[in-house]
Parts: sequence; structure tokens; C-alpha cells
Amino acid sequence: MRGAVMYGPGDVRVEDREEPRIVEPTDAIIRVSAACVCGSDLWPYRGVEDMRWPAPMGHEYAGVVEEVGNDVQNIKPGQFVVGSFWATDNTCEICWAGYQSACVNRVPMGMLGAQAEFLRVPLADGTLVATPELPAYDLIPSLLSASDVLGTGWFGAVAAEAGPGQTVAVVGDGAVGLLAVLAAKQLGADRIIAMSRHEPRQRLALEYGATDIVAERGEDGVAEIKELTDGLGAHSVVEAVGTQESMMQAISSTRPGGHVGFVGVGHEVAVPGMDLFWSLVHLHGGPAPVRRFLPELIDLIWTREIDPGKVFDLELPLDQAAEGYRAMDQRESIKVLLHP
Amino acid sequence: MRGAVMYGPGDVRVEDREEPRIVEPTDAIIRVSAACVCGSDLWPYRGVEDMRWPAPMGHEYAGVVEEVGNDVQNIKPGQFVVGSFWATDNTCEICWAGYQSACVNRVPMGMLGAQAEFLRVPLADGTLVATPELPAYDLIPSLLSASDVLGTGWFGAVAAEAGPGQTVAVVGDGAVGLLAVLAAKQLGADRIIAMSRHEPRQRLALEYGATDIVAERGEDGVAEIKELTDGLGAHSVVEAVGTQESMMQAISSTRPGGHVGFVGVGHEVAVPGMDLFWSLVHLHGGPAPVRRFLPELIDLIWTREIDPGKVFDLELPLDQAAEGYRAMDQRESIKVLLHP
Repeated sequence: MRGAVMYGPGDVRVEDREEPRIVEPTDAIIRVSAACVCGSDLWPYRGVEDMRWPAPMGHEYAGVVEEVGNDVQNIKPGQFVVGSFWATDNTCEICWAGYQSACVNRVPMGMLGAQAEFLRVPLADGTLVATPELPAYDLIPSLLSASDVLGTGWFGAVAAEAGPGQTVAVVGDGAVGLLAVLAAKQLGADRIIAMSRHEPRQRLALEYGATDIVAERGEDGVAEIKELTDGLGAHSVVEAVGTQESMMQAISSTRPGGHVGFVGVGHEVAVPGMDLFWSLVHLHGGPAPVRRFLPELIDLIWTREIDPGKVFDLELPLDQAAEGYRAMDQRESIKVLLHP
Repeated sequence: MRGAVMYGPGDVRVEDREEPRIVEPTDAIIRVSAACVCGSDLWPYRGVEDMRWPAPMGHEYAGVVEEVGNDVQNIKPGQFVVGSFWATDNTCEICWAGYQSACVNRVPMGMLGAQAEFLRVPLADGTLVATPELPAYDLIPSLLSASDVLGTGWFGAVAAEAGPGQTVAVVGDGAVGLLAVLAAKQLGADRIIAMSRHEPRQRLALEYGATDIVAERGEDGVAEIKELTDGLGAHSVVEAVGTQESMMQAISSTRPGGHVGFVGVGHEVAVPGMDLFWSLVHLHGGPAPVRRFLPELIDLIWTREIDPGKVFDLELPLDQAAEGYRAMDQRESIKVLLHP
């Protein structure tokens, strides 16, 4: 089968890979209907994160079940399924608490390479959620988004405790940030401030429910948020970038007692203790426990209440994955969908 | 009147200071019944935190109201009152949300010097809480503790979401840590692990409700907590020290999805973004909004349900304040009470 493999920073190739087979009796094999390039795939692409090369790429996926192992009970061949970027048992104490991304038996899907025609999914019963029936073709991008980028933006908004009566600010206008805007809207926030300086992204943010746009960054961005909130700061702020500047911008934009939900992967971030102390904010985030939200998100997509698939502004055949990485790296595209 | 003044690191003197008078119509003047030395007073004493010298010292107080300004409505001369280490209006939006320590009109009591015979308390109606009547003499240490050290330990436990069904660990066996143990017990925690290597403090922790003692620190301490919690970590961890080691110990001892409440003043702390990201914990803390808890704490003390005053293991006349600082700095005393 064809699959994307990264050979080093900036070097993505689509080549013939061995077709995956059932290894554990809890596995499923799915035929990938759509995969995509994640903002976090750009960390190794840019040389910021090291990997063991060559590395099969991709951890976001939606597709049709081809085969299941002997111990799989709930997932059946022929079902259309979405899973998270962690395979998880969904039965351990941590999963039960809603933190499936830290499941004691988790397996990172990134190692298995979802940017491919077929994908082995470990712990299929715990990991995969099936749609009610095979989806209409135009729903596939949105269902795919639930696998990571929507689930991550949603977690950011939940971690920031976005809700009725709240002013929510979102730092970052990548796909995750834009979908955090959508999530804040769904969660009932009164006012949603999208921090973005890119006109097409501002437009999508407004479409997703943003009520205000702030183009300034850093201290100027913080001042603008304070200006919009009687000098107090937002109740909830989602951090969806992962730089020192964006993290401090998020913390400083939040009022005392407010909540910062951070989902940016902060490789070089260090939060100064005294800034955190005096801010009196709540700080929560990390790898999103997407599995917690999948049933609800699939339902919202299935009933067409939300259209998160709009973040895919470039669709390419899998064989052109390298072009997809390039376009996202250059910020020419918000998010790239790959058709195997 | 007599009052303690710090002239520089290690140099505390009790000298004649001008008696405070009403300055603003919202002020009260109280005759201090008891004051004390705070762990945070040791930061400048040790030269870690700079101050404008000479500095009147002390921000924890309980006493009898002598006089009130014209705009003070609820606080009356003759009442016994306890206040927090911030004077706060208790009416602004931040106060209403329970974060009085970030009140938009707050005044730091430390600048006014509570280790003295008399004290001016700004924003008296918002800051002070009166006891039902004049207290029995033996209740005064406990009431004094509510002013900061109990309120701070309580906030640590609340920020860590200690409650029924939870395993709570407390990092730090100073007065705040010990009272966080008491708070966790009151909040209904099932299991309370006190991290302490000092026998007298271990004993008080057990008396306050600790079910387990862990003497190890750093990575060994984390391993011990994991050992006691099926490898998962505690649900709730209170950080009551303020060093890099204690903060990382607290984060690492908490299970994914769990809560760290930090009340140590972390002057040299920097939380690495990736450690925080992968931990998936909730992090919340800062200067405790003691005023939020004062009515409840005073009630628990008044009805003798709790006895937080036991943390005072050394009582001295105000004139011997320097000896009190020395004893706490040398860890000979947990907490020193000063009698003006």
C-alpha cells in the first residue's frame, strides 16, 4: 500500500509500505477514507522535534473497518469509524476519569502511520467510535477533524471552562484555534475573541462564532483583551500555539480566577513561577483526551449542527503529501486533507 | 507604639513606631491581640526577596477594633476581628468571583506592619470578619491562623480539589502544609499523604488527619506516592514550599486529570512546558483569597471543630520578634506567635 514516510526534516515521501495486519486480538484494520497533516507533524518537519527516521507519518484518521481481531466485540467490519491519535482501552481508571490520552495502556497512533491506505488500530473497542451508518461523502472532512483537530480545540475550550456568561479568548488561528472558537460557541460562551492577524482565518473565526477579532500579539494583544473586558481579562483563554509568547499571552489575558486551556505543544515553553502565582489563573491542558468527546462530536457533525471540516482548505491525493506539508509549513494552508 | 521593622536580611528590630490613625474613611484601627511570623517573611529575611528598607513587618493579625472611619458600616469598635493579608473591597467583580486576593482595590497589609500594637486596616468592611463575641483566650491562636496560614493551606486544598473519594498528597510540612492536611481532612478526602521528614511535624500531620507519611523527596518521593496509588499518582496534590523541586514533585505526583494546588511562593520556579503538557494535571494557586474562606474558618474554630492554632509551637512577646524570625529560619519552630 502507499503511505507517507518522513526521512528527516523537510523530507516527506510517499512510498510503498507493507500493508498492516492484525497483530493483537484487540486490533482492527481500517481502510483510511481520509487522513491529514497535523500542526504537530510540523515539529519534526521543522527539525524542532527529533524522531527515529524514517518515520511513517499521520495520526488523524477516519475510515471503514476491514477486519477485526478475535477479541474485538463492538467494532464490526464495514462500519465507518473515527478514532483518536491515541489508541486507548477506555476502561482503565484514567480513561474513566475522562483522560484517555493518558490511558495506562495507550499506544501512540503516530507510530503506525495514518497517512496511508490502511491502518492498524490497537485497542479497537476502546479507541474507535462508529457513525450511525456510512456517512455522506461531504461529512468525511468533518468526521476526520473529530479525530484530532476538532477534539483538541474542543478540549482547549473545555479546559478553559468556556461556557454561558463567559468571555473567551483564543490565542492562535491555526485549525485548532479556529475549532476552539467553534467549541466555545457550542459551549455557550457569550463573547468570543479570536486573536488572528490573517484575514481568511479571521473570516472563518467569525463564521465559527467569534464576536471580536484582535490582531495584536504579545503585550499589545493582552492590552487589547483587557480593554475589551473592563480591564479584568477574559474568563477563559485557549492557548493553541505552543510558544513562550503565546503561553504568556494566554496567562496574562486571563482574569484572576479565570481558566487557561492550553493545547499547543510547548517545546520551549517555561512558565515563570511568580507570573503564574500572581496571575491566580487555572492552567490545564496537554494532549487532548479526544475519545472523551468523540460520541458528542460525531453526533454534532452527523446532525450538521457544526461544520468543522471547513478548516481543510486544501485537499490532495495522498501521493502529494509532501506538498501538503510544505503548504502548511509555509502557512499557505490552514489544514491539509489527504485522500488515500 | 512598639512594632517590628526589618532593616535588611537577618536584621529585625522592635522599635517605637508612630501609632496608626484613620487615613481613609473606610479604614479601621485595631489593637492587635496576636500577630505572627509568616514563611513568606523569611524570603526577605534570607535575602531572596528585595524590599525597601527599613520595612515594617507582619501581615497576619487578629484583634479588637479601636476606631473606624466614617464610611465603615459593618465593623464596630469593640468587635474582635480577623482579616486577610490583603485589604480588599469584597464588592468588585473579582472579589465576587472569590478571588479577593486579586481585588481591583486591594492593599497589601504587609506594608502596614501587623507585628505591632496597633494596625490600620484599609477597606475595613470588605476585609474584616468579626467573631460572634469576644473569644476565649485559648481560641486566639487559631483565629489568628485564619488570617493567613490556615486560609492559605485551605486554599491549597480547595485549589487541589481535595474531597471525598480522593487521595490527597501535601508537599511541604511547614505550617501551611500542615494546615492543608487539616483542610483536606475537613473537605472529606479519603486518604491524605503528608510528605515530611521531621518527626514533630509528622506527628502534627497525623493529628490533623494524615493517613500516610512519606519522608522521601524529589523523584523518590514521587515514586513513593505512585507506589501508594496503584502507579497512577494522587488525585490532588498541595504544593506548599515554593521551590523548583517541590513544584515538580507536586506535578509529578499527580495523576493525569488530577489537580495541583500551589501556595508556595515560587521565586525561582519555572515550569517546563512539556512536563506540564504531558502531565495533564490542573494547576491552580497563588496568593490565597483568604477572605473567601474566613466566615467558614472562623465558624469551624469557634465551634472547636478544628484546632489550627497548634501550628504555633513558639509564643514570644513582640519585643522578641527577632528571636522568632531566627527560630523559624532555622526550622527550630514551625510558626511563631507574637504577643504585642
